[in-house]
Amino acid sequence: MNRKLRMGMVGGGIGSFIGPVHRKAAGIDGEIELVCGAFSILPEESIATGAALYLDPSRVYTTFQEMMEKEKKMPADKRIDFVSVVTPNHVHFAPTKLALESGFHVIVEKPIAFSLKEANTLKKLVEKTGLVLALTHTYTGYPMVKEARELIRSGKLGAIRKVYVEYPQGWLSKALEKTGNMQASWRTDPKQSGMGGAIGDIGTHAANLAEYVTGGKITEVCALLNTVVEGRRLDDDTSMLLRFNNGATGVLIATQVAAGEENNLNIRVYGEKGGLEWKQEEPNTLIMKWLDRPKEVVRAGWTYLSAEAKNFIRTPPGHPEGYLEAFANIYRAFTKAVRDYKPGKKVDPAKYDFPDVNDGVHGMAFVETVVKSAGSNKKWIQLK
Amino acid sequence: MNRKLRMGMVGGGIGSFIGPVHRKAAGIDGEIELVCGAFSILPEESIATGAALYLDPSRVYTTFQEMMEKEKKMPADKRIDFVSVVTPNHVHFAPTKLALESGFHVIVEKPIAFSLKEANTLKKLVEKTGLVLALTHTYTGYPMVKEARELIRSGKLGAIRKVYVEYPQGWLSKALEKTGNMQASWRTDPKQSGMGGAIGDIGTHAANLAEYVTGGKITEVCALLNTVVEGRRLDDDTSMLLRFNNGATGVLIATQVAAGEENNLNIRVYGEKGGLEWKQEEPNTLIMKWLDRPKEVVRAGWTYLSAEAKNFIRTPPGHPEGYLEAFANIYRAFTKAVRDYKPGKKVDPAKYDFPDVNDGVHGMAFVETVVKSAGSNKKWIQLK
Amino acid sequence: MNRKLRMGMVGGGIGSFIGPVHRKAAGIDGEIELVCGAFSILPEESIATGAALYLDPSRVYTTFQEMMEKEKKMPADKRIDFVSVVTPNHVHFAPTKLALESGFHVIVEKPIAFSLKEANTLKKLVEKTGLVLALTHTYTGYPMVKEARELIRSGKLGAIRKVYVEYPQGWLSKALEKTGNMQASWRTDPKQSGMGGAIGDIGTHAANLAEYVTGGKITEVCALLNTVVEGRRLDDDTSMLLRFNNGATGVLIATQVAAGEENNLNIRVYGEKGGLEWKQEEPNTLIMKWLDRPKEVVRAGWTYLSAEAKNFIRTPPGHPEGYLEAFANIYRAFTKAVRDYKPGKKVDPAKYDFPDVNDGVHGMAFVETVVKSAGSNKKWIQLK
Amino acid sequence: MNRKLRMGMVGGGIGSFIGPVHRKAAGIDGEIELVCGAFSILPEESIATGAALYLDPSRVYTTFQEMMEKEKKMPADKRIDFVSVVTPNHVHFAPTKLALESGFHVIVEKPIAFSLKEANTLKKLVEKTGLVLALTHTYTGYPMVKEARELIRSGKLGAIRKVYVEYPQGWLSKALEKTGNMQASWRTDPKQSGMGGAIGDIGTHAANLAEYVTGGKITEVCALLNTVVEGRRLDDDTSMLLRFNNGATGVLIATQVAAGEENNLNIRVYGEKGGLEWKQEEPNTLIMKWLDRPKEVVRAGWTYLSAEAKNFIRTPPGHPEGYLEAFANIYRAFTKAVRDYKPGKKVDPAKYDFPDVNDGVHGMAFVETVVKSAGSNKKWIQLK
Repeated sequence: MNRKLRMGMVGGGIGSFIGPVHRKAAGIDGEIELVCGAFSILPEESIATGAALYLDPSRVYTTFQEMMEKEKKMPADKRIDFVSVVTPNHVHFAPTKLALESGFHVIVEKPIAFSLKEANTLKKLVEKTGLVLALTHTYTGYPMVKEARELIRSGKLGAIRKVYVEYPQGWLSKALEKTGNMQASWRTDPKQSGMGGAIGDIGTHAANLAEYVTGGKITEVCALLNTVVEGRRLDDDTSMLLRFNNGATGVLIATQVAAGEENNLNIRVYGEKGGLEWKQEEPNTLIMKWLDRPKEVVRAGWTYLSAEAKNFIRTPPGHPEGYLEAFANIYRAFTKAVRDYKPGKKVDPAKYDFPDVNDGVHGMAFVETVVKSAGSNKKWIQLK
Repeated sequence: MNRKLRMGMVGGGIGSFIGPVHRKAAGIDGEIELVCGAFSILPEESIATGAALYLDPSRVYTTFQEMMEKEKKMPADKRIDFVSVVTPNHVHFAPTKLALESGFHVIVEKPIAFSLKEANTLKKLVEKTGLVLALTHTYTGYPMVKEARELIRSGKLGAIRKVYVEYPQGWLSKALEKTGNMQASWRTDPKQSGMGGAIGDIGTHAANLAEYVTGGKITEVCALLNTVVEGRRLDDDTSMLLRFNNGATGVLIATQVAAGEENNLNIRVYGEKGGLEWKQEEPNTLIMKWLDRPKEVVRAGWTYLSAEAKNFIRTPPGHPEGYLEAFANIYRAFTKAVRDYKPGKKVDPAKYDFPDVNDGVHGMAFVETVVKSAGSNKKWIQLK
Repeated sequence: MNRKLRMGMVGGGIGSFIGPVHRKAAGIDGEIELVCGAFSILPEESIATGAALYLDPSRVYTTFQEMMEKEKKMPADKRIDFVSVVTPNHVHFAPTKLALESGFHVIVEKPIAFSLKEANTLKKLVEKTGLVLALTHTYTGYPMVKEARELIRSGKLGAIRKVYVEYPQGWLSKALEKTGNMQASWRTDPKQSGMGGAIGDIGTHAANLAEYVTGGKITEVCALLNTVVEGRRLDDDTSMLLRFNNGATGVLIATQVAAGEENNLNIRVYGEKGGLEWKQEEPNTLIMKWLDRPKEVVRAGWTYLSAEAKNFIRTPPGHPEGYLEAFANIYRAFTKAVRDYKPGKKVDPAKYDFPDVNDGVHGMAFVETVVKSAGSNKKWIQLK
Repeated sequence: MNRKLRMGMVGGGIGSFIGPVHRKAAGIDGEIELVCGAFSILPEESIATGAALYLDPSRVYTTFQEMMEKEKKMPADKRIDFVSVVTPNHVHFAPTKLALESGFHVIVEKPIAFSLKEANTLKKLVEKTGLVLALTHTYTGYPMVKEARELIRSGKLGAIRKVYVEYPQGWLSKALEKTGNMQASWRTDPKQSGMGGAIGDIGTHAANLAEYVTGGKITEVCALLNTVVEGRRLDDDTSMLLRFNNGATGVLIATQVAAGEENNLNIRVYGEKGGLEWKQEEPNTLIMKWLDRPKEVVRAGWTYLSAEAKNFIRTPPGHPEGYLEAFANIYRAFTKAVRDYKPGKKVDPAKYDFPDVNDGVHGMAFVETVVKSAGSNKKWIQLK
């Protein structure tokens, strides 16, 4: 396919945070062209967004249904290849489902759906259609996260014993949702966000990161879920003890009331022979710790890195890449899978290294299990 | 009392880690003179230690009982003023008790005793005699820890919401106790260490630090206690969820199998208006985080610090003080209390700012509660 | 102009480092479309590059002369708006000159030309045509660099006294140019690189950063220029003392033989009332130092920043932006100027905040002055 | 000599900064006993200081002449072993000379004297008497500085190419000497401080550190010396280019007007194969940089360190040592040399690892050469 891939977007209108992030990420590598969108349920907002993006007005739609309908009928040399879904949580499921049913590949914001049941519906649809679905668990797009995974996979740390993962933010320390802040409003509204507040919004990123890096799966949780800010309708803080299927134990912290914190996602893993540490706010650095020799500072861009990390690096050492590039890496892997796609042939997400529908299903199960644990006097609740 | 205070030491013979630490700490401020000791239960070791310390051989004893007995009878211008107890855990109680009964003030390594019951016995004895007892919870001796406490006390962070405290070490990642390492041996031996391994050795430091800094008390714990290294007889790893009496919740991590970690004790506290962060390995720095303005890097030695911190600082900004100075600060506060001591007059440890017998009792209760929680299927266990 | 701007590229073929950087940077904000290029003097390489970029083969040229010629004649709705020049140093001048003469705006890699004379020719041409010319002194594209400049401009530091700027790299510690490394080859070849090695390649970035941040101009230098690696034909290391027109003095270090360093460009400025520090490898952080209160950690993304910095930020606090985004900021400012361009109306680069032809002229004068100083026994040489 | 060494002090009365530092440092290891002193030229201050230090009033003197005189006549079992000279710069020479003439070993604050001539006089006296003289260039007492030297000595970095050493302070950013600040007053007074301000006070520390770590000697300087604060009588800021006898070149910065800086002494050295970095404000960490593998974080306390570093470490990894311990290390080395001293046998300072009279002479020559260079239009001035 000797051309840019054509992308249509659902959501991402004026005031959106994640829409522009997706568009910028998709623009970095020069592999994707945004050609249409249904950017908002308010027609004038969708039109204004399309105009600001220099789109052909005839391909700016007012509903995602209209978009799928019309794009499906376009000639092959104009029609979109895939849909990017960047709406609030409660509008992830429907456009994703319709895109798949319309024969389009999909890249969708996390969480994949509003409930475990919906997530499973999408899983079946992906299996049935064979289409490519990527979920933007952005943080596993960072090359040094991939390097961490490779170092653990290779056995350098020995058997994993401890996993500490945290995602502290401070931006919801006050009742920002009462001040008209759009990001705060939908995230604290159960109707738009789902059953989880902080746990769904950022706790799932932390859990996903822990499992991605260690290769283990969380099997049991013992969780505390708080609503710290008075009057808030969802949790804004969680801490939990974890058990993994490989015998490791750990702690997960996710909070939006850690005043003064930005997006301090971080992970520390310890094995028999060593440990490692990575922080999203300094993403090009990976610290390796050893039992009997100096700590090492592994850095993006060096030739000594694994191929798995190097595939996703654009700049030489010391020229930092950031969040948009991590995001672009999900698009990069997704794009390659879409280019390789052949009807009837199964795509293996692990080969391209992007989060897929199974991560989406697992994430929904995680949120439901944590909510259950938080409401229980029983110490440990199983995550299936 | 226009002279140096005279100290006698119990424990701290050859191979001891903490004995030399106490002696160096006691030597820094020029207020204390070591004049006698019962350094080991092996007479030749006690004698050799005394000689290496240039002590009068007639005041090098082979048992602490002999030491108390003989020193008690010395003339007032030669007799020790206080005893420093630096033995392994199971020999804290007896010499401390005998010292108090012999009329000597005591500075004792933590844990104060082997059980909550013993701790309470000492508490009664302190109350009865009015003598000064200090417990070397070293880390609260750091000036920036005191500054953190003052900043919280002053209300700068608002009501406290979250407390994360950690003490990760890596030195017991292997079965070091089987290689003849004396420090590892007694710490993993229930007969010498007590019912807690990591939880008693370092978990208590973490809990003490959290309570000292925030001014709150832990009221409930939900704990996981692991013995990670095969064949070890005590826990070497713990994680727990915490509830405090001021409504805050938190997480405590203490582990000795975090491969590559040194003594990475650290605390983060978040309130309504801001947060703070302190790390023992960079002890002269205190990070303050705010909701709507830049983080601040509060540093030892500056004139802007509180009097409570400045009382315990010896050097100007940028000339770092360390662990021995923190230790010396416990001695400094204790020494002042001893100098102010008047029979019949009650000493207020808070005035001098040293950990006292109540911290000792509380620490023993904490260990017992965590062990109970770890063995229970009930989510939360109360700490009384 | 309700469409994307159309860009043509000169240079940036296979093996190029900076070509892909420009293309990615130009792609981030969705304002620019690459439509043609003369990517290499080797026709097959130019064609292969164009194909890899999904360009219309009819617009992939083999010389920049051909490109200008043909594009000039295109209809207005297809013709490029500007040219991006990303060739090695010795091929900056000719295509830039021709582009201006052909009526195209230009964004050109630094150094602007091969000599001060050439640079002045371009300056006259810009003045004559009124076209927009931007020079990619990337590092001033970082938002925190802009914040630093604003803080100094506002007088928060008082009169500036000291400026320390460094650009240490380690990648030329060995004779990499003898191993076939293309980047090393042209950079150490006087015919392709010009009279300066490290001084031209990275020293100019350091000088530009110092002047941009402080608002002062370097008036005198006292320089040491070394060729550390045996057999190298240009300097690979320089250090110099500086005097500024505002009374400040300083030190500039630029070296490519600081083994183990990546791209550790950094600047520290001290004034009467405070100081600041910024490092390219952690570009989202700006440290402010004060005479009598805690250091502050100013961070990208916060609302407290100046409008001048916020105009160039894409992500919220803690979601790091990096080198490509800094680069994209030069394109962002340049693009706005091009969109505002009206024939006959003078463009003010300061309004848009991009490095312009005057920076190019000054940079050439700087290199020539340093080389002169290095060869002189006189202590100070004036920079005019 | 099975007893503590007996120390007499000259200087260090009320208001002194360095006197208490010496006393605390001397107290840490339990090898030294302060028995007498001439603490101030004001008799009442000397008496008050002696009382505060619990000294026998009969051994508190009002002049150093009286002290030497009387101590010399004491019986061998009471007489001091050595003198510690902690007066302002202009009173270093006389008591040091008299101490040596009186048969006492000496540990003296830097600079060793007021002029190169005086320094040479002391050198001859040391050679003649064979007595031990140590100079407190404190910073080479840090164990990680010793480790850095060992790593370079061992050839791990290859031939040394670049040396960057800095000592930025901010405390003299204002005319503090006009506010009654005693430390600022004498340091900015040529009569008490000598011909150098910042260059003598802290520049010499930087030069000494650079030579100690690299094993090279500075042979040429090209210096800029400023008096930044109006009305000040000595330089408060210096920068210079350096040439070393081993072919390396470098930069030395020393300033007291870097607003907001504390005592940010730091050094970076680069060789053919790697580099290293050390900062006094985080003294337990040494960063090693390599051409083709990750940076390493070498930390105090680990078993992997050289014997030369381990000899001067008191605590396990992660229990930080600081400035007082570095200072105590000068005393530790000096004390060992004094204990080993035998009349007629030459002491080798390198064996014990303390700065000696040759460092003192070289330091004076360095100051004189820098002052000469600063006043010259010639680029390079030789340091002999």
